[in-house]
Amino acid sequence: MSQQTILKINGDRLVERLKCLGQVGALDGGGVSRLALTTADREGRDLVVSWMKQLGMTVSIDQIGNIIATRQGADQNAAPVMTGSHIDTVRTGGLYDGNLGVLAGLEVVERLNELDIKTRHPIAVAVFTNEEGARFSPDMMGSFVYVGGMPLAEALDTVGIDGKTVRECLNEIGYAGTSKISTPSVHAFLELHIEQGPVLDEEQVQIGVVEEVQGISWTEYTFEGVSNHAGTTPMRLRKDAGFAAMSVANHVREVAIKMGGNQVGTVGFIEIKPNLVNVVPNFARITVDLRNTDEKLLQLAESNLTDFIDSICSKEKLKVSSKTLARFEPVNFDPSLVDRVEQTAKSFGYSSMRIPSGAGHDAQMLARICPSAMIFVPSKKGISHNIKEFTAPEDLCRGADILLSLMLDLAIHERSDML
Amino acid sequence: MSQQTILKINGDRLVERLKCLGQVGALDGGGVSRLALTTADREGRDLVVSWMKQLGMTVSIDQIGNIIATRQGADQNAAPVMTGSHIDTVRTGGLYDGNLGVLAGLEVVERLNELDIKTRHPIAVAVFTNEEGARFSPDMMGSFVYVGGMPLAEALDTVGIDGKTVRECLNEIGYAGTSKISTPSVHAFLELHIEQGPVLDEEQVQIGVVEEVQGISWTEYTFEGVSNHAGTTPMRLRKDAGFAAMSVANHVREVAIKMGGNQVGTVGFIEIKPNLVNVVPNFARITVDLRNTDEKLLQLAESNLTDFIDSICSKEKLKVSSKTLARFEPVNFDPSLVDRVEQTAKSFGYSSMRIPSGAGHDAQMLARICPSAMIFVPSKKGISHNIKEFTAPEDLCRGADILLSLMLDLAIHERSDML
Repeated sequence: MSQQTILKINGDRLVERLKCLGQVGALDGGGVSRLALTTADREGRDLVVSWMKQLGMTVSIDQIGNIIATRQGADQNAAPVMTGSHIDTVRTGGLYDGNLGVLAGLEVVERLNELDIKTRHPIAVAVFTNEEGARFSPDMMGSFVYVGGMPLAEALDTVGIDGKTVRECLNEIGYAGTSKISTPSVHAFLELHIEQGPVLDEEQVQIGVVEEVQGISWTEYTFEGVSNHAGTTPMRLRKDAGFAAMSVANHVREVAIKMGGNQVGTVGFIEIKPNLVNVVPNFARITVDLRNTDEKLLQLAESNLTDFIDSICSKEKLKVSSKTLARFEPVNFDPSLVDRVEQTAKSFGYSSMRIPSGAGHDAQMLARICPSAMIFVPSKKGISHNIKEFTAPEDLCRGADILLSLMLDLAIHERSDML
Repeated sequence: MSQQTILKINGDRLVERLKCLGQVGALDGGGVSRLALTTADREGRDLVVSWMKQLGMTVSIDQIGNIIATRQGADQNAAPVMTGSHIDTVRTGGLYDGNLGVLAGLEVVERLNELDIKTRHPIAVAVFTNEEGARFSPDMMGSFVYVGGMPLAEALDTVGIDGKTVRECLNEIGYAGTSKISTPSVHAFLELHIEQGPVLDEEQVQIGVVEEVQGISWTEYTFEGVSNHAGTTPMRLRKDAGFAAMSVANHVREVAIKMGGNQVGTVGFIEIKPNLVNVVPNFARITVDLRNTDEKLLQLAESNLTDFIDSICSKEKLKVSSKTLARFEPVNFDPSLVDRVEQTAKSFGYSSMRIPSGAGHDAQMLARICPSAMIFVPSKKGISHNIKEFTAPEDLCRGADILLSLMLDLAIHERSDML
């Protein structure tokens, strides 16, 4: 029997910590509300930091409020094997998203402590600031700053939905740390996360081996036409901004179906004016969310959309303007580390499949500076960012088992060819 | 030369009255705001009533606040030849809609007074309450109650957008009249109105001979699906309420184009939830406005829509419910009276064309109890319900000339076969 099959995490303890953290900012009816850098976030951070200290870890807070806890390694010069995620949530979030990745990291450390296992590399567990982006844009802010992708000052100056800056809020909650932002040295990064989609649950597969994170393209389109009487204006004389905007939803669906593969597309936001039953709208604004794991295909979807919008605005004689809200290229995780996630799942006898991540995660930022990969566990019915978010305890544990096994493997051996 | 070509209205006086009434509730930048039964509406009513009295007319106010002013006829028992419209406006309305029909009626009376012409039938000018429906639903309320189409109590109990009832507001502005609502005796009804559409202006035609008013079908649809992550949810697993709702706009446009003729269709209102760029909407509500002058074709458009919605909700696995907001069958005006509008236009040498009315008007309510017809004059670029609404003085006068000529013709002679 291999090492992995005997070395398992303590599932009860992991579930207990998830429950306990879930009481901070708990909502009536279930779920949790811990928007980034609020009092609830501070209470959650304080709880996690207290656990880190109980486990004997060294805790440092950096200038963007990221919490990095480290379990010492045998080699003073070795870079840490890191895991982690975030504990901020959307306004009405669940107990698992983000929290699982952090608390599974603590469980890995506690299990190593219990078994008195020494590793060559230090083991680090990170809690990154404002992953959700529900209060401050962009999302994944803490990890983005951590890897040098976003200037610290720009992040600190970001104004949230309630008019406060990140800087103010970090000071308010006491998490404006002193640890300097500089290119960190990380040996490898692993993130355990719930899928936040329905694929594993639908397919009844236990582990998702995440090869890549979809590229994201968010664009806002504003259409301007002429407001007219819905009864007296013949169809041929209309300049209907609402019609053009709504047509985009059809187009996006058609393109996503036709392209197939990992292409998805969503019109999630629409506003029209004057928004009255009997008036042809003179104004419409929509957002389009396009994602693909292949940058070239994502660009194809984008150019299809642009062509469609040009064509309908020309036919309907509308003015149109567009604004890019977000644009991230797809991220490919480290192939050999991804293979090792898959092999580890097999060695445990857990069923697995390779899937892309449709959501953004801190791991995609870490992938800029070190070999990185992700482990997904099923989300019931794919429900996420919702108080009904649920992953069964046995699924949580399977993911954490793989995390423990692979982190130990990465940290204990010194193999230059390993990654 | 026939009588019609010599007997013309005084255009300067008509335009002057329009300007004067346009100062009541005037908006900066032009236009007027006189929502039904507000202080501004009262001031407008007071001004019009003072003019009516100056012209020697007998003014009565009925229980729904309709103002009926009568110029005596020679025959004590003859029913009046009536004209009129409304002076309430939408929140940001123009100077012509409604006002023209009322003030042209006063100009008819003043011209008859000047020339000392006695008519056998009385001449009546009506100002109907709440035609716009912008504060209280339904629109055309005063004329609907006047002809016995809506119970008085129901109309008085109607609650407006600001929470007040029609009853309260009539009392507040002093227009809760005592004249009882009972089936009125009206010899014939004519209404002069701006087209509120672009056809006459586009076609450079001076007079619109209105044969019919389009039937109106307003339906609200509510779609319920499942909210999901826009990145992680494959297209095939979506229950996207927003997509289905927006698809309806495409369908409505296709059906209107395919059916042609007078069929128009508009999605003027949409609301989706949670209305976020990266979330598949679980809720959507839209309204569909369908109109046709042919009841059977209108029913066909309605059943096409129902089939489409059933089909898309079945494909997308959505729940849907619908609510009828308004349903009026098309109204055909009195064919011989319509012919006489056309002949009168010809006798003046004014160009004319037959067109349907896409908007609702008080005349369609009067058509329930007496021979009725309408005269349209052009609206520049079809703009209406807008501070930019404009009709050239010469166009206003042409319409009023026809009104004067035809009312005189209807009121002076006693011909049992006339209508």
